[in-house]
Amino acid sequence: VSCEPVTWADGTLRIIDQTRLPRELIYVELPTAASVWDAIKTLQVRGAPAIGVCAAFGVLVGLRETAPATAGDRVRAVHQVADYLGTSRPTAVNLFWALDRMRRVADAADTGDTAEALGAALEREACAILAEDIELGHRIGAAGAALIREGAGVLTHCNAGALATGGAGTALAVIYHAHVAGRRFQVYADETRPLLQGARLTAWELHRAGIPVTLICDNMAAQVMREGRIDLVIVGADRVARNGDAANKIGTYGLAVLARAHGIPFYIAIPSSTLDPALNDGTGIPIEQRAEEEITAPFGYPIAPEGIGVYNPAFDVTPASLITGIITEHGIMDPPFTDSLCQLGTAGTQLSGAVLR
Amino acid sequence: VSCEPVTWADGTLRIIDQTRLPRELIYVELPTAASVWDAIKTLQVRGAPAIGVCAAFGVLVGLRETAPATAGDRVRAVHQVADYLGTSRPTAVNLFWALDRMRRVADAADTGDTAEALGAALEREACAILAEDIELGHRIGAAGAALIREGAGVLTHCNAGALATGGAGTALAVIYHAHVAGRRFQVYADETRPLLQGARLTAWELHRAGIPVTLICDNMAAQVMREGRIDLVIVGADRVARNGDAANKIGTYGLAVLARAHGIPFYIAIPSSTLDPALNDGTGIPIEQRAEEEITAPFGYPIAPEGIGVYNPAFDVTPASLITGIITEHGIMDPPFTDSLCQLGTAGTQLSGAVLR
Repeated sequence: VSCEPVTWADGTLRIIDQTRLPRELIYVELPTAASVWDAIKTLQVRGAPAIGVCAAFGVLVGLRETAPATAGDRVRAVHQVADYLGTSRPTAVNLFWALDRMRRVADAADTGDTAEALGAALEREACAILAEDIELGHRIGAAGAALIREGAGVLTHCNAGALATGGAGTALAVIYHAHVAGRRFQVYADETRPLLQGARLTAWELHRAGIPVTLICDNMAAQVMREGRIDLVIVGADRVARNGDAANKIGTYGLAVLARAHGIPFYIAIPSSTLDPALNDGTGIPIEQRAEEEITAPFGYPIAPEGIGVYNPAFDVTPASLITGIITEHGIMDPPFTDSLCQLGTAGTQLSGAVLR
Repeated sequence: VSCEPVTWADGTLRIIDQTRLPRELIYVELPTAASVWDAIKTLQVRGAPAIGVCAAFGVLVGLRETAPATAGDRVRAVHQVADYLGTSRPTAVNLFWALDRMRRVADAADTGDTAEALGAALEREACAILAEDIELGHRIGAAGAALIREGAGVLTHCNAGALATGGAGTALAVIYHAHVAGRRFQVYADETRPLLQGARLTAWELHRAGIPVTLICDNMAAQVMREGRIDLVIVGADRVARNGDAANKIGTYGLAVLARAHGIPFYIAIPSSTLDPALNDGTGIPIEQRAEEEITAPFGYPIAPEGIGVYNPAFDVTPASLITGIITEHGIMDPPFTDSLCQLGTAGTQLSGAVLR
């Protein structure tokens, strides 16, 4: 299932240029911090967990570029490149979480360490983030797979799949696990305007894995629900507050309202790194506003007159009250989410069974 | 406001090729029944009322092509071309309503009438349909304009404007009238995938008329509502059943659900020709399914992998229970709609004040 959107081999960071999918599957090298920043900003690499992985290796790339002279300079350089990479996109918390892990490794380094020693420690940390992400995909998929019954219809939005993470994804990991378990079902993929991650990435991934997928325009989701084709909705998230409010790709909130109106369960699938324990609720989640041209000139082709207003928020926040359950590497959480998410926020802590299914 | 999407001059039928907007404003001639059929099928001319007007003139064009020898042949030829044009698109009832008016003129012709006499009678009828449509736009606009208050936010979907009718439109006629009355307000236009009538046509029309318009992707409507930017939703319709169930461009039903969830009034604006008195409710409205390529390769640019499933219904049906009011040339109808719509079905009858605001 994995398609390795971010790879690190012999000191070289490479990503799949996701803006060229599904036409071309091309890996590009990111040799500088600026190229990492651009790749995140332009969505060549995207998906909250994959952004975190890419940024972690980006710190290594950036440190190598500057080649600081002293141990103190090296720690400062790690902070500088981490601060810089943190300005690429504001919403996905995994970016800041991964950069913080890299900063902590630098801060913990001995002042007598060589450049090689710090580099090796940072490389171990970035590789650990990637390896953990792969493992998390398995665990999220295993935790949620039973939600998808034989013959079910599953609706997803944007891409929370192998292209969005180091491993099998989050929402799509659940789908892959149900498929591997031998169940047959139908996935409906919202195309996800403006950047069409559903059409370009989710449909590509699922079709490649032999899972039946039907593409719809975003505005068809309500009709597809009304026709009884959808048994559950599963999406990923870019940042989840302690109460369960979940920021995800624009359109997710509307889907959650529609799912509720049609009596359809609505699930979020996330690794614990997507939780932002600093936020009590979703009102504090920064929403990235992106360029008008993403809407008015998709792929450079103008579809709207010049001079009009355009509104292009990249994310919205689904209130916890519309979320049936949150699928994590530790199991499926039922509402209210505050207690279970607070425990999830304690890194590495296995949650008690009491708050989990 | 009018931009004359369908014109008839010196026996020549011309339309704006709306597939080329907003890049180019080009009129094309429709010299044959086949070209009229194609223009409707490919949405060079679209919008339920405009389709009706174009098809009415299309009967004249088709009759001239065949040049039947006898009076009886001419009546049969009118029926044949009307039947043919009626196969172009299934959902908008105005098409069948306009073709029926042309059939009735032929059926009423004297068996001794010349080709010229029948032609003149048919031309009078088609011109009457166009003139009535222009007049209806004024009346619909006047009936609904007070709904748009100073400073309001108005959301619309697809294009129910001057490009969709002979006159100022239906939903957009209301907007134009409020603008002419001096009120300032903000229109949000859903881009309306797959064919982007909102981006290409509604934004173009409104911007041209000096009305502030902000373009959004369809999946942003829920967020825009949640942010408190929308005070009412107004859309057109392609066919309305006697109970008020309304078929309109795909996505309308979802908008109505979202509007209800946010406590926002949801209005349909239609001329009486959009009522289908033969249908008790919306379950009998045929929903056109269109080509996959409209979704997978917009404007010929492939955005999805080959081999996947695609679902492309062109319309959905909004149940009357989600509709706050129906704006017609006779005023604004409140629910329940059955009595008032039945009276509207009696052509030309002025409705009693009792059922209208």
